[in-house]
Amino acid sequence: MDFQHSTIAEGYVKRMTQFVRERILPVEEAILSEKKEYGADWKNWPLDERLEALKQQAKAEGLWNLFLPEISGLSHTDYAVLAEITGLSLLAPEIFNCNAPDTGNMELLWKYGSEAQKQQWLEPLLEGRIRSAFCMTEPEVASSDPTNLRATIVQDGDHVVLNGRKWWSTGLGHPNCKLLIFMGLSNPTAHKYLQHSMVLVDVATPGVHIERMLPVFGAYDAPYGHGQVMFDQVRVPVANVIGGLGRGFEIAQGRLGPGRVHHCMRLVGAAERALELLIQRGKSRNAFGKPLLQLNGNRDLVAQARMDIEMIRLLVLKTAWLLDTVGIMGALSEVSQIKVACPTVAARIIDQAIQMHGGEGLSDNTPLAAMYAYARILRLADGPDEVHRGVVASRELKKYE
Amino acid sequence: MDFQHSTIAEGYVKRMTQFVRERILPVEEAILSEKKEYGADWKNWPLDERLEALKQQAKAEGLWNLFLPEISGLSHTDYAVLAEITGLSLLAPEIFNCNAPDTGNMELLWKYGSEAQKQQWLEPLLEGRIRSAFCMTEPEVASSDPTNLRATIVQDGDHVVLNGRKWWSTGLGHPNCKLLIFMGLSNPTAHKYLQHSMVLVDVATPGVHIERMLPVFGAYDAPYGHGQVMFDQVRVPVANVIGGLGRGFEIAQGRLGPGRVHHCMRLVGAAERALELLIQRGKSRNAFGKPLLQLNGNRDLVAQARMDIEMIRLLVLKTAWLLDTVGIMGALSEVSQIKVACPTVAARIIDQAIQMHGGEGLSDNTPLAAMYAYARILRLADGPDEVHRGVVASRELKKYE
Amino acid sequence: MDFQHSTIAEGYVKRMTQFVRERILPVEEAILSEKKEYGADWKNWPLDERLEALKQQAKAEGLWNLFLPEISGLSHTDYAVLAEITGLSLLAPEIFNCNAPDTGNMELLWKYGSEAQKQQWLEPLLEGRIRSAFCMTEPEVASSDPTNLRATIVQDGDHVVLNGRKWWSTGLGHPNCKLLIFMGLSNPTAHKYLQHSMVLVDVATPGVHIERMLPVFGAYDAPYGHGQVMFDQVRVPVANVIGGLGRGFEIAQGRLGPGRVHHCMRLVGAAERALELLIQRGKSRNAFGKPLLQLNGNRDLVAQARMDIEMIRLLVLKTAWLLDTVGIMGALSEVSQIKVACPTVAARIIDQAIQMHGGEGLSDNTPLAAMYAYARILRLADGPDEVHRGVVASRELKKYE
Amino acid sequence: MDFQHSTIAEGYVKRMTQFVRERILPVEEAILSEKKEYGADWKNWPLDERLEALKQQAKAEGLWNLFLPEISGLSHTDYAVLAEITGLSLLAPEIFNCNAPDTGNMELLWKYGSEAQKQQWLEPLLEGRIRSAFCMTEPEVASSDPTNLRATIVQDGDHVVLNGRKWWSTGLGHPNCKLLIFMGLSNPTAHKYLQHSMVLVDVATPGVHIERMLPVFGAYDAPYGHGQVMFDQVRVPVANVIGGLGRGFEIAQGRLGPGRVHHCMRLVGAAERALELLIQRGKSRNAFGKPLLQLNGNRDLVAQARMDIEMIRLLVLKTAWLLDTVGIMGALSEVSQIKVACPTVAARIIDQAIQMHGGEGLSDNTPLAAMYAYARILRLADGPDEVHRGVVASRELKKYE
Repeated sequence: MDFQHSTIAEGYVKRMTQFVRERILPVEEAILSEKKEYGADWKNWPLDERLEALKQQAKAEGLWNLFLPEISGLSHTDYAVLAEITGLSLLAPEIFNCNAPDTGNMELLWKYGSEAQKQQWLEPLLEGRIRSAFCMTEPEVASSDPTNLRATIVQDGDHVVLNGRKWWSTGLGHPNCKLLIFMGLSNPTAHKYLQHSMVLVDVATPGVHIERMLPVFGAYDAPYGHGQVMFDQVRVPVANVIGGLGRGFEIAQGRLGPGRVHHCMRLVGAAERALELLIQRGKSRNAFGKPLLQLNGNRDLVAQARMDIEMIRLLVLKTAWLLDTVGIMGALSEVSQIKVACPTVAARIIDQAIQMHGGEGLSDNTPLAAMYAYARILRLADGPDEVHRGVVASRELKKYE
Repeated sequence: MDFQHSTIAEGYVKRMTQFVRERILPVEEAILSEKKEYGADWKNWPLDERLEALKQQAKAEGLWNLFLPEISGLSHTDYAVLAEITGLSLLAPEIFNCNAPDTGNMELLWKYGSEAQKQQWLEPLLEGRIRSAFCMTEPEVASSDPTNLRATIVQDGDHVVLNGRKWWSTGLGHPNCKLLIFMGLSNPTAHKYLQHSMVLVDVATPGVHIERMLPVFGAYDAPYGHGQVMFDQVRVPVANVIGGLGRGFEIAQGRLGPGRVHHCMRLVGAAERALELLIQRGKSRNAFGKPLLQLNGNRDLVAQARMDIEMIRLLVLKTAWLLDTVGIMGALSEVSQIKVACPTVAARIIDQAIQMHGGEGLSDNTPLAAMYAYARILRLADGPDEVHRGVVASRELKKYE
Repeated sequence: MDFQHSTIAEGYVKRMTQFVRERILPVEEAILSEKKEYGADWKNWPLDERLEALKQQAKAEGLWNLFLPEISGLSHTDYAVLAEITGLSLLAPEIFNCNAPDTGNMELLWKYGSEAQKQQWLEPLLEGRIRSAFCMTEPEVASSDPTNLRATIVQDGDHVVLNGRKWWSTGLGHPNCKLLIFMGLSNPTAHKYLQHSMVLVDVATPGVHIERMLPVFGAYDAPYGHGQVMFDQVRVPVANVIGGLGRGFEIAQGRLGPGRVHHCMRLVGAAERALELLIQRGKSRNAFGKPLLQLNGNRDLVAQARMDIEMIRLLVLKTAWLLDTVGIMGALSEVSQIKVACPTVAARIIDQAIQMHGGEGLSDNTPLAAMYAYARILRLADGPDEVHRGVVASRELKKYE
Repeated sequence: MDFQHSTIAEGYVKRMTQFVRERILPVEEAILSEKKEYGADWKNWPLDERLEALKQQAKAEGLWNLFLPEISGLSHTDYAVLAEITGLSLLAPEIFNCNAPDTGNMELLWKYGSEAQKQQWLEPLLEGRIRSAFCMTEPEVASSDPTNLRATIVQDGDHVVLNGRKWWSTGLGHPNCKLLIFMGLSNPTAHKYLQHSMVLVDVATPGVHIERMLPVFGAYDAPYGHGQVMFDQVRVPVANVIGGLGRGFEIAQGRLGPGRVHHCMRLVGAAERALELLIQRGKSRNAFGKPLLQLNGNRDLVAQARMDIEMIRLLVLKTAWLLDTVGIMGALSEVSQIKVACPTVAARIIDQAIQMHGGEGLSDNTPLAAMYAYARILRLADGPDEVHRGVVASRELKKYE
């Protein structure tokens, strides 16, 4: 178990940390202070020029696409520590072209895409010129059990016709979102893990109706958004199917391992940031004649947060190391373990930081409320806690058979 | 300890339950399904005609102002069970003219207001023609320790001049909000509990600048809103001071006991509603071949929720009974106990109901996300958990002196 | 919901509180300080003369058999508050002739016993001359599901023959234990709730082999003990069957409702005592220049303990009130609720009191370690938490059918 | 962060695992089944010949004294994984001559002992011929703040005279316990961390009165015992002082880092064993027609236990790695982190395993009750949770100065 990242990664660690702390956090503070509102009217969500400028800087400085091992040459263990740094601010991942779901979509195109698919979609994604969404979850069924998915893909000559409603398609509200990856039932009579396919869909294709962005506790996670979208007799060429009909589950599985490591390390970063804010507030605000940190069990909160952050970080690093050394099939339990442990711990620490800020912590004065929503949604997205606990239990019990 | 409500109250219980379930919940469902947005632009928040109509019905049917013992003839124990019913929907309290902070403000005017003050402000409030806000919390200081409050009230002849910034003034965004009750430092050299005063301020007074509504996790709790407001050299007649200069703390104290019982019983109602939604979802949605309720420890969640709801309800009823029998000074520990216990339990059960709904639970498809914000904010509003635990501990330790 | 105990009960409250605090607690302290050991060698467990003397006093003063409504004239609500007082010391229940399982056994004989049975067994039990045990749980099967019980009762003319091993028969080690109530399978082909019977067995009957007392975390709960006992071809007259063959479940059910209320109220008393000890220690012991209570979040522990004790007490009182007003069939959920909530809360508070005492808390210098064992065992005895949560969930879900 | 143990350690892992599982666990089972009692009468605690034989085997096979880097050549990281294996059974540590407090005492003698001290005491300890105790904690003061210690060491010519009562001296009841290390106040006017000294005392020295063994929840942890011992004018040569007068704290500090890693890794092993027993019981015992593991949220318990064990193990390994790479002064926070996290997690999992076993789990039929006591006592021994949380918080807050 060697979790030490490489010296190359160490260079990135220093540069990204500096980039986030010196360039992104000040912009974050400026943006929060402007109290601009991004409500349900997603079609009018503007791009922020400051962020666009930071993206160009990151790209120019080579802090770009580091998530993709084939480009960056970094191992999962290496990238994990970088993902943590991007978790310090919700603005950071996009700036480094490392935000979900684009990362997973790019990885998927890299691995399973045809040359034509790569040329048309992967290149502009890697350049950050366009963005993408992943359309899997459906409102009508418990998508935690993906064999429930009902949206359909029917071949009609050299086209496929897509039908069905999808939601929680993150990134769909972004002004630059051009590509949708649609997952649906194409081979209903095959084995249950061979029934689904993934299809590339240009967002401008007739029949694609974006119905709305979904709020999380009332906030829209702009400019990304979590979209609800109807596919109504959407026709695209068969050549848009990824890897061939019936391979949807296989491709989804490969996509989720590294993606969960990324999410979880970002949560570690978010938890670190929350602890930082908690301590700064606790030191600077006084009540009853003392700094808040000296009251009640607040120092114990700090201690418990430190312990728990250390533990979830180590667990994610171990998982990344397993992906590097034995691959996803040897890390199924660990991937599910981190998917349960990290959002729970991060949400609790963020919530405690909110409490330390008083009402301000719930408002948009600090990044905490949005961070809480991020941590909370990850108890559901990419599989709810319940499903992941089930995976961990079932891997454990297998040892006794 | 006789928590049984009176037979008069029992009549109200039946009628209010029916009113909420048959008339309010269907409107709530309709409103949620319309996905209308109430963003930061609070000046354009419309009144909903359906709710206005329901208010008229409630008024006509005598389900109106029941919170005020002097009008309704109900004890605190009696009203507590009604407050629980109003907690089933976030729309209900206003419809019965029983929502915070108007309830507290009316009570305060009833008890401490001069005849002129009553005529000008209490009557229209009781009729539901206007609404009000309570301006106490300040951004710059830890208002959990109210001796920190810095906003000033300076007498200038037969006027007082008010200065200072306030926030978390709930209800300030409502189109009908006309009255502000301002708390500030008027007698800075007096004993620390005799330094503050409360002043009635018409929202249209020059110098009152409403700066914005504060979001909670990004949502604005429209059409009420939590306002941030600047008082800049606001001049009002000395006659607008409530009960005389220096009585601010005394009045605030009397206001908070019943108000906390109301909040807490509404949370009991919210927890009941969340459990109901959790069970309905858990019975009707299937995954892995079974209703969700049959999976994992979900039945245990139901059992634990039932126990915890029973326990917090009983604790609030005991507190109400103490208010009825020995008054607020004999119920200080209990009032603080419920203020800690109820939001914690309600927030947990609502969160579990969200989890059972999957992503939908976080969206605006159900009342759960807004209920969560209500429960969460009550861990801070009217005194944070930390302060109330301190009260309970200090009352307990007094027994050993 | 009127939980107020009667004025008669109020008289007992005063006298019993005084009795416990002035006479029992000093003896408890003396006994603890003597460090006498009661190990596995149960046959040599002596009676303590001081306790015998206190029993005589309690009997003489009418503080005797108050658990039995038919004798004491007290309601369940009345007795509940007395049971709490007996929970302040593990020595108290026997002194008032109110300890399990004798209470349940006496109640059972009172309700279902024949005249001859009453004369032979109930009278000496009521006089405190003999003691008894209840032999239900079996080592070989999950007795949480009582339909699993395998010990057999076979009729042979005017006798029944009993076979099977029982354990966790509390009280079996007491020098005065004379009566065993044996539950076994008598009618294996009947409906599953009509297959079992209860039989009265003199402990001296041939074939009754007491194998040992079972330790709980290494302690023997002397002089009561939790016995393991083999019934090997034990012959007793058919007249020893209680209420007729096949009525075992029916009788067991009636026995458990009040018994659980007693256990739970004793736990409330134990939690109160633990909180008292926690506070006294926290005030008197110093570290780092301050009393322990002023360190860390220790005051928050006190506050949380106070809240939780209030809540479990109210829940038990409500359950007692339901037993009084609607009977056991209307209180099934509540009886199970308290059976889960009380041991959990009491065990946590006792554990915190132990922590406040440092290593001493784990030793036999204070009553805390033994109290912890009592609370812990009640998460299993009379049905494990899991079964009771199941009852609560299933009663809750019935509302939705 | 390279936690991988060496290939030499890997060889020990295999051999020790096999030794524990094939030779120690069967003896453990046999001993448990014999129900021999080791009560308060510690002077008659016998040695078990089977264990003595296993010790000889372990010694002969080189599985001996592996805790001491200077002998074994193992790093802390290497030994940590071995300590986990010794945690699988409470009998194992002594068999490998690796149990507390002898390990710490030997280490201390190795580092600070004079040649004469080493020859007299270290050699027989390393050979397992004698055993030792560490006499630090005092009944009269909160020893969590070691500056409170009051026992005295007064120089009198070429002797020192020791006075004071100590308790929780683990191992003092062992028939072979010969050496006591006494910590006391020798230089009361020096700086507060230079006031104490450690002195070697033969248990047979006049004035050493072993008063009793202290039970933990009623059990004596035989044949080790936790002793209470009076030092009454005990005279020993000055040459028995370790490292010179006034160095007590310095020596204690160095002693505790590795010792805590050992305790914590043993707890990881204990947690693994408890999970194993939980699963085996849950699979083999049926209720309501199903194996217990299929009921309620029992599979979730398994999943949570697996996650938590992984996390505490990684945290201990990181701490060991820090000890190896930067030494104790760079690992102060981590040493305190594991000291809080490991006993808490282990105690919870052991408690859940007890619950899965029903009443049997609390008895002496399984190793669980004794393991629970071990985990529970470690929330107090070597510094209570509260003190360690304080260390973690204070190291964290230092970053902000």
